[in-house]
Amino acid sequence: MKILVINCGSSSLKYQLFDMENEAVLAKGNCDRIGNEKESFIGFSANGESDKEKVIMLNHTEAFLQVKRVLTEGKFKVIDDLGEISAIGHRIVQGGALFNESMLVTDEVVEGIRGLCDLAPLHNPAHIQGIEACRDVFGKELPQVVVFDNTFHSTMPPEAYIFPIPYEYYEKYQIRRYGFHGTSHRFVSARCAEVMGKDIKDLKIVTCHLGNGSSITAVKNGKCVDTSMGLTPLDGFIMGTRCGAVDPSVITYLQQKEGWTPSETDIVLNKKSGVLGISGVDSDDRAVSAAEAQGNERAHLARSIQKYQVRKLIGSYVAAMDGVDAIVFTGGIGENTFDLRADVCNNLSYLGIKLDAEANEVMRRGKEGEISTADSKVRVFVLPTNEELVIARDTKAIVDAL
Amino acid sequence: MKILVINCGSSSLKYQLFDMENEAVLAKGNCDRIGNEKESFIGFSANGESDKEKVIMLNHTEAFLQVKRVLTEGKFKVIDDLGEISAIGHRIVQGGALFNESMLVTDEVVEGIRGLCDLAPLHNPAHIQGIEACRDVFGKELPQVVVFDNTFHSTMPPEAYIFPIPYEYYEKYQIRRYGFHGTSHRFVSARCAEVMGKDIKDLKIVTCHLGNGSSITAVKNGKCVDTSMGLTPLDGFIMGTRCGAVDPSVITYLQQKEGWTPSETDIVLNKKSGVLGISGVDSDDRAVSAAEAQGNERAHLARSIQKYQVRKLIGSYVAAMDGVDAIVFTGGIGENTFDLRADVCNNLSYLGIKLDAEANEVMRRGKEGEISTADSKVRVFVLPTNEELVIARDTKAIVDAL
Repeated sequence: MKILVINCGSSSLKYQLFDMENEAVLAKGNCDRIGNEKESFIGFSANGESDKEKVIMLNHTEAFLQVKRVLTEGKFKVIDDLGEISAIGHRIVQGGALFNESMLVTDEVVEGIRGLCDLAPLHNPAHIQGIEACRDVFGKELPQVVVFDNTFHSTMPPEAYIFPIPYEYYEKYQIRRYGFHGTSHRFVSARCAEVMGKDIKDLKIVTCHLGNGSSITAVKNGKCVDTSMGLTPLDGFIMGTRCGAVDPSVITYLQQKEGWTPSETDIVLNKKSGVLGISGVDSDDRAVSAAEAQGNERAHLARSIQKYQVRKLIGSYVAAMDGVDAIVFTGGIGENTFDLRADVCNNLSYLGIKLDAEANEVMRRGKEGEISTADSKVRVFVLPTNEELVIARDTKAIVDAL
Repeated sequence: MKILVINCGSSSLKYQLFDMENEAVLAKGNCDRIGNEKESFIGFSANGESDKEKVIMLNHTEAFLQVKRVLTEGKFKVIDDLGEISAIGHRIVQGGALFNESMLVTDEVVEGIRGLCDLAPLHNPAHIQGIEACRDVFGKELPQVVVFDNTFHSTMPPEAYIFPIPYEYYEKYQIRRYGFHGTSHRFVSARCAEVMGKDIKDLKIVTCHLGNGSSITAVKNGKCVDTSMGLTPLDGFIMGTRCGAVDPSVITYLQQKEGWTPSETDIVLNKKSGVLGISGVDSDDRAVSAAEAQGNERAHLARSIQKYQVRKLIGSYVAAMDGVDAIVFTGGIGENTFDLRADVCNNLSYLGIKLDAEANEVMRRGKEGEISTADSKVRVFVLPTNEELVIARDTKAIVDAL
């Protein structure tokens, strides 16, 4: 069974085609600047090679036609026609409190996703465009499945998801913690239990998804009990360009001083803050690490804040679960930035964590493994995440049951 | 030596007169609704009795004249004339990064406090009024000392006090974490070391000041390394009417939906949120506990959030210090609300904390003592705070050295 996994943004589309017999990725790629009349691009790879073409794609339907072309024609061809694809799985950012599991796409489900656009104005409308474009290009009969970024977090108790603002705004606007990166936290926590050879129901795990966007989750007995992202992916701790949780009075103080509207404020907090805002160098971890190595003090400050906040958040989730069996690092930074992992783990010695410094240094570039010593009381792992595979698996399971 | 300790708000004045020979409180009281032309009040107590009078006080000078009257005349008289008072100590909320220790009042110091009014618009102007009114009533020759709420927090490292917003706003407006309740955290952490019979330089202590306003501080080797309040006392975790730290996007989302200005937003987050906002019952812990006992679900939710957030913050500060020797509860809630203490401690068993349930239940109403068992790996104390005594001691030390 071949399954196409899709992640649609407002002007982008990422895809991966899985062969579910062996969960292999047959082809993958991305369309960028969809809707730009002057230039848009499709990048694609298959059979160990990749390429990029400039091609005008005015909407998502045109983008899917390009995806169809590179999958079925020319040098990067991996299938003869779209009929070989058994189902499509979509990543959906915001499922609100409405969707607590992955779902087969029906008109009702699309309307549900539409009803949540207000909570994810940049993402959910694009996801609906993607679903509708797939209907145009692949036909209405092809099963489509939606996998929500926050489903895994739907098990949080109210004390974790209710913000201490007047309760009426939870009732009126459904303002609460939803969490994101759920498929990643679900994948690596399950993988962690597998690697440990234990039942996830017996484990307390803190999963750290650290990338340009970052979130940390407390997974107790296989269920998410708390996560750092909130109503939107802005909440939590320092990220590439996002500030995470800050003193609310900082926001109103700046608004008064600078005269910002709420949306101007959002732009500063989402796009100009975080590691970029502190370092003044870049949002990219590699660039900021390099600047720090060259003695840039603000790059050092940005990275110190990052290490410190990750450590504190792990500490708070260990308290939330009253203990921890394993800590997992994943995501671009989590999988590669070993000095961050070392700093975090070496300062959590009160938990009985002992870092294997050598193992930690080699665990990079997609390598999976343990970075704690054999006598460490808490086991620490680097586990590359694979959100697309989770989406493919969920899609297969739902289609198999049809 | 007799020292008068003063805490001036914009329409209030609290005082305590100490005899520093034995650190006894000779008299204390408070003036409320100063500036109200129709009614203002002075409450006062001495010699084991208290009373209250309605009296018009149009400004702080008139209030100090009333304080002088009750101290030197009538049934509550404790001194013959103001000449017996050797010095006055003032509580100052915001010392910014300018004042790292308690100071003798000079014109320069007053100007320094005035320069920080922008960071504490409700407090610092009132403090200056208080200092000037004291000069009028007690004479310019009487030494006055200022003790800052955030001095104790001035030892925080940058990774704890810099918010991950664009760095230019730290440079431009001095936006950073300052912390508050410093005299309380300083008092109870020192007292904790004393009770433990150890040098504070060898201890890691988490101090929880829980009242209508609440803050938690990490005290490592006698120095504050992190604290939950930030630029203003709004930051941190759920309080009586304050939200603490929340997802910044919640704030901008609400502003867009409700059309709030920054100052309207401040009012909601400072006055209508927290335990009051969630419970819909009250901001007062006793009232909300009573409502919870009667089955009020939202009162239960508010208290669950409170217990959970206190626990998580303790956990994060234990991680910040890489361990903990003692946890201290103080403040109105910290000193009295034993079910909160029990819930927090019983869910921190991974630290080796063992609560002495009986000791915990009796440790109320100003009682000081240990609430952990003899074999608890971390010692837990209830230590009533005494910010006024700290101010009196600092004042004495500075005046003694003149």
